[in-house]
Amino acid sequence: MAVASMPTYLRCACSCWRRPQGGSGGKRQVTPKSEDFSRWYLDLVREAELADYGPVRGTMVIRPYAYALWEAIQGDLDRRFKEVGVQNAYFPQLIPLSFLQKEAQHVEGFAPELALVTHGGGKELEEPLVVRPTSETIVNHMFAQWVQSYRDLPLLLNQWANVHRWELRTRPFVRTLEFLWQEGHTAHATAEEAAAMARRMVQVYADFATDVAAMPVVVGRKSRLESFAGANKTLTIEAMMGDRRALQAGTSHELGDNFARAFGTRFLDEAGALVSVQQTSWGASTRLIGGVIMTHGDETGLRLPPRLAPIQVVVIPIVKKDADRDAVLSVAEALVAAAVAAGIRVRLDADRERTPGWKFNHWEMKGVPVRIEVGPRDVAEGTCVAARRDRPGREGKTFGVPLESGAFVAHVRGLLDDVQASLLAEATAFRDANIVDVESYAELREAIAAGKWARGWWAGSDEAETQVKEETSATLRCIPFDQPGGGGRCLFSGEPATEVAVFAKSY
Amino acid sequence: MAVASMPTYLRCACSCWRRPQGGSGGKRQVTPKSEDFSRWYLDLVREAELADYGPVRGTMVIRPYAYALWEAIQGDLDRRFKEVGVQNAYFPQLIPLSFLQKEAQHVEGFAPELALVTHGGGKELEEPLVVRPTSETIVNHMFAQWVQSYRDLPLLLNQWANVHRWELRTRPFVRTLEFLWQEGHTAHATAEEAAAMARRMVQVYADFATDVAAMPVVVGRKSRLESFAGANKTLTIEAMMGDRRALQAGTSHELGDNFARAFGTRFLDEAGALVSVQQTSWGASTRLIGGVIMTHGDETGLRLPPRLAPIQVVVIPIVKKDADRDAVLSVAEALVAAAVAAGIRVRLDADRERTPGWKFNHWEMKGVPVRIEVGPRDVAEGTCVAARRDRPGREGKTFGVPLESGAFVAHVRGLLDDVQASLLAEATAFRDANIVDVESYAELREAIAAGKWARGWWAGSDEAETQVKEETSATLRCIPFDQPGGGGRCLFSGEPATEVAVFAKSY
Repeated sequence: MAVASMPTYLRCACSCWRRPQGGSGGKRQVTPKSEDFSRWYLDLVREAELADYGPVRGTMVIRPYAYALWEAIQGDLDRRFKEVGVQNAYFPQLIPLSFLQKEAQHVEGFAPELALVTHGGGKELEEPLVVRPTSETIVNHMFAQWVQSYRDLPLLLNQWANVHRWELRTRPFVRTLEFLWQEGHTAHATAEEAAAMARRMVQVYADFATDVAAMPVVVGRKSRLESFAGANKTLTIEAMMGDRRALQAGTSHELGDNFARAFGTRFLDEAGALVSVQQTSWGASTRLIGGVIMTHGDETGLRLPPRLAPIQVVVIPIVKKDADRDAVLSVAEALVAAAVAAGIRVRLDADRERTPGWKFNHWEMKGVPVRIEVGPRDVAEGTCVAARRDRPGREGKTFGVPLESGAFVAHVRGLLDDVQASLLAEATAFRDANIVDVESYAELREAIAAGKWARGWWAGSDEAETQVKEETSATLRCIPFDQPGGGGRCLFSGEPATEVAVFAKSY
Repeated sequence: MAVASMPTYLRCACSCWRRPQGGSGGKRQVTPKSEDFSRWYLDLVREAELADYGPVRGTMVIRPYAYALWEAIQGDLDRRFKEVGVQNAYFPQLIPLSFLQKEAQHVEGFAPELALVTHGGGKELEEPLVVRPTSETIVNHMFAQWVQSYRDLPLLLNQWANVHRWELRTRPFVRTLEFLWQEGHTAHATAEEAAAMARRMVQVYADFATDVAAMPVVVGRKSRLESFAGANKTLTIEAMMGDRRALQAGTSHELGDNFARAFGTRFLDEAGALVSVQQTSWGASTRLIGGVIMTHGDETGLRLPPRLAPIQVVVIPIVKKDADRDAVLSVAEALVAAAVAAGIRVRLDADRERTPGWKFNHWEMKGVPVRIEVGPRDVAEGTCVAARRDRPGREGKTFGVPLESGAFVAHVRGLLDDVQASLLAEATAFRDANIVDVESYAELREAIAAGKWARGWWAGSDEAETQVKEETSATLRCIPFDQPGGGGRCLFSGEPATEVAVFAKSY
């Protein structure tokens, strides 16, 4: 048999997932979100075929549909990094354990989570090797060799890689033993420049989250206790999930010269003095997929923002009588061709063994933003029906969408823009309705107990922050960049405070 | 200081390496290729800033310029895979050791090269985990869960990942302890379909090598001894490097049901019988970068095929008097803008601290296919000079290239096509001149001793093949698909043979 005759399931030029899998044929369902959010999430991950559990506890297999989402995330972030002048590189995954131990705070933070390679090529190694949990140490080992003069700075690198952290409580995408991420590492001549870089990169994450993932975020800096092990300052984007827990969705660190001193990453400045470089690192991971699921998903499945969706539009021919099939199919194919030509990621679902109802359910579960239905009467009338995923039932349907390709594409483009904007607006309204301004610890406890985020003036000590965490399970998510100005009384101590902080339970 | 005022070195929208690094200013040189090919290669990897050694013996850091090459390779291969209907996914890197042991041949082949994780999260693990050397086992663990019916087939997956093999003798890109690759894994209902898939994928590699990397290859199947551990048949592309050693540059395996039986990957066929799937796997790696270097590099550095080159064209303004600077620079910038608009990956090198001579040397080392020089007299005459990297000195120069953007772009495009074709033609002629048709073992020994490849009729046993390897250090690279037809006498045994085989020393 020639491969040419193999079914390839290729309908469009995108990286989309092309074929409904699984043979059961039954309607797929998830636990109601309002009933048990955690089970809803796990059901959705399974039913939308996003991930499966790996054989080693805490690991996961990223299935094609979720990987296509990751490719979309990668593509967008990578373009943004390159616009900043960042170059991609790749550093070895196995790091001598002694490297981790060079920066005291860093090893303290990561030691409990390390995976160790102790044997290679049939022999016990002289020194155990750490399976990278993050790469600041090995990056500095190389930077120390590459940087000699101020002319070598800034050095702006990024790598797309897998990392391992031996987590005890795992959840697909949100916290797994191994995950995929990017980690940027930069070296600068001055602390001011490094600080500006760290701030610029957290803004890149915020822009991506808002404009592409339709996931509104609070941007700010972490408290000392919540900062990255080895950083002087950690900046973060915090998103509110559907259960109102916070998800830290990207972080950017000012490392100062902490690693540079430990590894001797020094350069001759313009005045001829030998000084340490100032560094940043910043990362975002496959956790973003969990964020998208938990921000937008509803009772019937995923809802994907069009800018990320591997399949933006699915076209479903509705054929009851065989006599109608050819006419309907050829119209459906023409619509697909018009959409492909317009750069829309579209899929034709002309499977003859599934009913339209099964397909509606299937593609709703997959979160495809727009569904086009076309049947014999539509063909006769020169129109089709468009249904948007973000509005259920009749309310989300447009009847009489013209079949003429220019008008059809214009309508679909408009719908995709609308869905993108609506998902962001809905998530923003939800977030804003669930952040409570509090003036006392009692009010904070009440807000947290009600499942909300609490925002209030804060001048608390590390001890105060720890007490809040122990008593409420909420952590200080960030001190937002966006501050009300002026000052007030610390919600905890009553002392004068100049900043508000946000507390929430988190993933 | 605002980040907006940071130098970003961003000249074009490509992923190119944007800044000459290293402060020494001296002319960079490599050991003559004819004198010591191995040292030439290592010098080139260092001087073109492609890779550095990692702290763990045998590991390497892929520097931005080489990583940009890898991104170009990935982009092209990934598009070809998707055209075949293959979807990307990601499988966990850590595999229970017992998985490897399920397929006898497989574990035998890989056992000596494994890296083992024995500790995680501060505790010794109950079972050691293998750091993936390849993923057939864990893929089958998942396929066994995903495949139930013939309707679930074919399953065509690929992953881009890092793998580890504890090699003793390493060389950057060619053989390293950790490398980056893609590994495709497919499952089919019939052996015929799997065989066709394996053949189709080796052809994808061959097309990429020839059309994009300008690296001619011999496509064929491996002998039993040289096949992948666990495969029924291994198909390969074999390229000839500048020292006439063979490089196995991509392989595609018919796995039969070897792994399916070990892991119970079975399905109900159309007749209702429960049978094992038939599988393939296929991979290509960062070794391809080594192949490009060793196929095209010359005494002055890299020579990159335009279709892979991160920077296809470098524009160098030649300014001796300050009074000329603005006029020359604005013309150079206009040329860059015209090239960018035409989708050409171009870089302007307007550095004022480097001489034109230094820059010529630098970009020749980097293998940029076309250099544009523009000085005051050129500006006055409305022309510029184009120099192609593949032809040294005056012979490779075109004078009087028009500055008008349409004509300029047309000329540059023509040159890039020419360089691409010339590199392939040169490498093909070199290869063909160095394959000797042999009729006896004596002739084979003579050819191998002269550093060439030997091709001859072959009906030898495993023992005969082993003897050739032991006595000549040459291995049976492949039995080419492209056969002379008819038959002859086996060069080793004199027995009737129906196929010719190719022998060579290899990397």
